[in-house]
Amino acid sequence: MKKFLFATALLTSLHFYSQPSVNMVKALMTAQESAWNNGDLEGFMSSYWKSDSLKFIGSKAVTYGWQATLDKYKRAYPTKTEMGVLKFSIIEATQLAKDAVYVIGKWELEKENPVSGHFTLLWRKIGDHWVIVADHTS
Amino acid sequence: MKKFLFATALLTSLHFYSQPSVNMVKALMTAQESAWNNGDLEGFMSSYWKSDSLKFIGSKAVTYGWQATLDKYKRAYPTKTEMGVLKFSIIEATQLAKDAVYVIGKWELEKENPVSGHFTLLWRKIGDHWVIVADHTS
Repeated sequence: MKKFLFATALLTSLHFYSQPSVNMVKALMTAQESAWNNGDLEGFMSSYWKSDSLKFIGSKAVTYGWQATLDKYKRAYPTKTEMGVLKFSIIEATQLAKDAVYVIGKWELEKENPVSGHFTLLWRKIGDHWVIVADHTS
Repeated sequence: MKKFLFATALLTSLHFYSQPSVNMVKALMTAQESAWNNGDLEGFMSSYWKSDSLKFIGSKAVTYGWQATLDKYKRAYPTKTEMGVLKFSIIEATQLAKDAVYVIGKWELEKENPVSGHFTLLWRKIGDHWVIVADHTS
């Protein structure tokens, strides 16, 4: 009976949480695109974990913390022209746990000299909010 | 009572699975270093999910599947000299669920022209085995 209750609770909770969580993360990424395309870096960054433990991983370095990540974006994209038009294409979004979603995707910046690459994001639900806790962009 | 049983089962299972899983993943990564440093690419690849759904993400492309990933490594590192000496430095290894561990780290290849970068790995327990299902290396 204990096992049955546990299995039922687990199945119910996975079923209940999976699709809405993935959809929420996708909606937040659409909002990030909009913020970026309005030149609003703070708005774009509102989906990142506001913590010194946030990690932004690139080939050369790991940037630690929300403020350092925002500063990095500001240095790299000082004007709206340099920000270009951002487009995310999600390749896969997987719910790993009630509080964890992993996303693989492609990013493109349309501008005079277009750039593109891939990202993998670890989203976690902290309190009531889904936030990116680790972003590997290449 | 149901809630109590569920909470107890959940806490027990998280406590029971967390550290051994992270240690297992770390041990597998040490084995990967050894295989690489013996010039054994198949041995190195034995920790990757042997599936067409394996994803190897780089800035330019996503490589799908175990065989395509091995072929890519073989093309990029045709000789033991070009493989160099691999060193992994784990920055963070986090258990996200009973069957999911996320690892952030740095890789270095010591050789005449040394190269280095970062990786994020999603490990999952499939059947009885922990395997990398997604590798983003930059």
